[in-house]
Amino acid sequence: MRNRTVIVLGADGYLGWPQAMHLSNQGHRVIAVDNLVRRRWDLECGTSSLIPISTMERRVERWRELGRGDIEWRMVDLTDADALSDLIASIKPDAVVHFAEQRSAPFSMIDREHAVMTQLNNVAGTLNLLFALHEHAPECHLVKLGTMGEYGTPNIDIEEGFITIEHNGRSDTLPYPKLPGSFYHLSKVHDSHNIHFVCRAWGIAATDLNQGVVYGCNTPETALHPELATRFDYDGIWGTVLNRFIVQSAIGKPLTVYGSGGQTRGFLDIRDTMACVQLSIEHPAKPGEFRVFNQFTEQFSVLQLAELVRDARAAHGGATTIDHTPNPRFEKDTHFYNAKHQLLVDLGLDAHKLRSTLIDSVIETVEQHIDRVDLSQVGVSDVEWVTGRSRAATGKAQVTAPAAETVA
Amino acid sequence: MRNRTVIVLGADGYLGWPQAMHLSNQGHRVIAVDNLVRRRWDLECGTSSLIPISTMERRVERWRELGRGDIEWRMVDLTDADALSDLIASIKPDAVVHFAEQRSAPFSMIDREHAVMTQLNNVAGTLNLLFALHEHAPECHLVKLGTMGEYGTPNIDIEEGFITIEHNGRSDTLPYPKLPGSFYHLSKVHDSHNIHFVCRAWGIAATDLNQGVVYGCNTPETALHPELATRFDYDGIWGTVLNRFIVQSAIGKPLTVYGSGGQTRGFLDIRDTMACVQLSIEHPAKPGEFRVFNQFTEQFSVLQLAELVRDARAAHGGATTIDHTPNPRFEKDTHFYNAKHQLLVDLGLDAHKLRSTLIDSVIETVEQHIDRVDLSQVGVSDVEWVTGRSRAATGKAQVTAPAAETVA
Repeated sequence: MRNRTVIVLGADGYLGWPQAMHLSNQGHRVIAVDNLVRRRWDLECGTSSLIPISTMERRVERWRELGRGDIEWRMVDLTDADALSDLIASIKPDAVVHFAEQRSAPFSMIDREHAVMTQLNNVAGTLNLLFALHEHAPECHLVKLGTMGEYGTPNIDIEEGFITIEHNGRSDTLPYPKLPGSFYHLSKVHDSHNIHFVCRAWGIAATDLNQGVVYGCNTPETALHPELATRFDYDGIWGTVLNRFIVQSAIGKPLTVYGSGGQTRGFLDIRDTMACVQLSIEHPAKPGEFRVFNQFTEQFSVLQLAELVRDARAAHGGATTIDHTPNPRFEKDTHFYNAKHQLLVDLGLDAHKLRSTLIDSVIETVEQHIDRVDLSQVGVSDVEWVTGRSRAATGKAQVTAPAAETVA
Repeated sequence: MRNRTVIVLGADGYLGWPQAMHLSNQGHRVIAVDNLVRRRWDLECGTSSLIPISTMERRVERWRELGRGDIEWRMVDLTDADALSDLIASIKPDAVVHFAEQRSAPFSMIDREHAVMTQLNNVAGTLNLLFALHEHAPECHLVKLGTMGEYGTPNIDIEEGFITIEHNGRSDTLPYPKLPGSFYHLSKVHDSHNIHFVCRAWGIAATDLNQGVVYGCNTPETALHPELATRFDYDGIWGTVLNRFIVQSAIGKPLTVYGSGGQTRGFLDIRDTMACVQLSIEHPAKPGEFRVFNQFTEQFSVLQLAELVRDARAAHGGATTIDHTPNPRFEKDTHFYNAKHQLLVDLGLDAHKLRSTLIDSVIETVEQHIDRVDLSQVGVSDVEWVTGRSRAATGKAQVTAPAAETVA
């Protein structure tokens, strides 16, 4: 397997940073790019990573000091088209992995400003990237992070990007219809349509990874040194559901399930994200091909996840309760859900299934940082999908309120 | 039929202005809104309306002087969220007709700047409108101009917005898959997804009019006075195909058909646009309903249209030739095409079919303004879909070149 030159966009994020290390570890030349906006959004929202994270400078320096090689760090904003174009022109990458988007559904639903910013940021950043590739690296393989949330919850099987439709005696294979559930998820649908078009019109090679909900915080690379840790979010804006439940259980709070908890989604271990992106890079799409992989390994309902966490705690003598709270989101909590996820397996994905040992190890990590838990961020608040305001706040979106209470 | 308060966004445009007059004539209160950017884009592109157009102030004053009533003119840019919000809050309209977007596919394909501007302008303007309606006029009916170009040319019948899919023993009715063919058409797909979401999440009532290619320049209202005329574009950026052919034939130039001319699309008379929007307003969508109508009356191939124009000229002794030029666009010129267009007929649309008398009347209008034809804008140039540059220009997009030659 030849080594490739890979740009990781969004390399300061939860997945971007471990992905940069993982690809470096596999022998690829990695250029890590970010605008660090995620750290600024933490300041705005009063949120922070449970696990302390180092600066990008410190991370790549530690990686080098440990003899793992060079990760080239570049601060670039994708909405700065000229800077992005210069980057692509100077590196001429074999692959670009694109994590660099506003990726929180609740954040996108706070109000008009957040909705518009999310869509303009994500759409413009991706368009700028597509033009830069077209001009300076037309054979580069684009690996774009999408989301399973693009599909919503249709009453038929979810296929991987395309569906063959028989209709009135004729047949065609067309993009799978989309029913996204937030302005963030909509931005990913917009991206998918834009990328599909440039594959057809310009011959760009692209893989759209419709990723499920990621859980976990440890990869072989993050475990090498505390300065190589990646962020771990547990609040109502940035935290994914299993990570949130684990923090709630670790501090002895009830697990807050929205509605009945019947919302079923695809999930995957953070280590499988690493593997899926690597497999995509090492088995690239062909010129002009727009390839869609559903990137998750198991389906769970939200209530099932809560029960898994409760049971894992119980095995160690902990008692955890499950609270059902009104669902702030616009989504069905009882629905059919059967999403295909075969194409990455065909490329060689050997999935980590969710076991209580994983939950135990995350709980252990949380307990190491228990003094950093901000109680005001745990569980009770979220952004209301209809009003754009938090149930916990009055007049102003909750996310702008400063964090006040911490667990000693 | 009760009279309604209707805001027409994009009321300075080819369709927006006659639509404002048409609705006023039907007894509705009309607020005409535009930012006049289309006139600035003419300056940028070196293009201009063949038919002289008055200022918005002069138009509404002439409408009043003729005793037709008040059309309230407001200059507002939809990307100015506060101004738009104030407008909606102060008027509290029963319906908003939304024409206010960058609507040229070639313009969106010139280069990165034009592509990104088109998408950000259209997506942000529509999002701002949706938030303003949600906050200040939640029962207002949104009538949004989309395009048949959202569908592309699938190998199955095109339905009106949604399709029932039978798949692996289950069934669902889902948004019709989209294969748009330019950054402009993509922006309309993005809008459709955004609007559909707010109908589901917020209960907005919306009608998405997927319009075909409009031809003609005269309505009963534009015919009342020269100062009430609407614009007529014939260039490679803004001109629709039948209007372009008619100008070419009127000045004795060959009709330029891209490729074989097998590209088949839906077409409609400008007077039917007026009627379709009126019917949509007077039979509104229900709260939470996202209704899609395919707004055209007949299908033609581009070559068929060219032959119709040639034959109409021949009937009056004119000789017209048809030239086939390489297709600058990314599109198939031989394909299946069968698009449904029944829902507006069910509401009462009585279509004007394309007859040689219509072509004759447009030729007559063109001949009245023949001294205004800019030869450099007729037929030979277009924006290349792959390179973003005109075949007629070197190094720089043709549209930025000043117009030089005019027909005496």
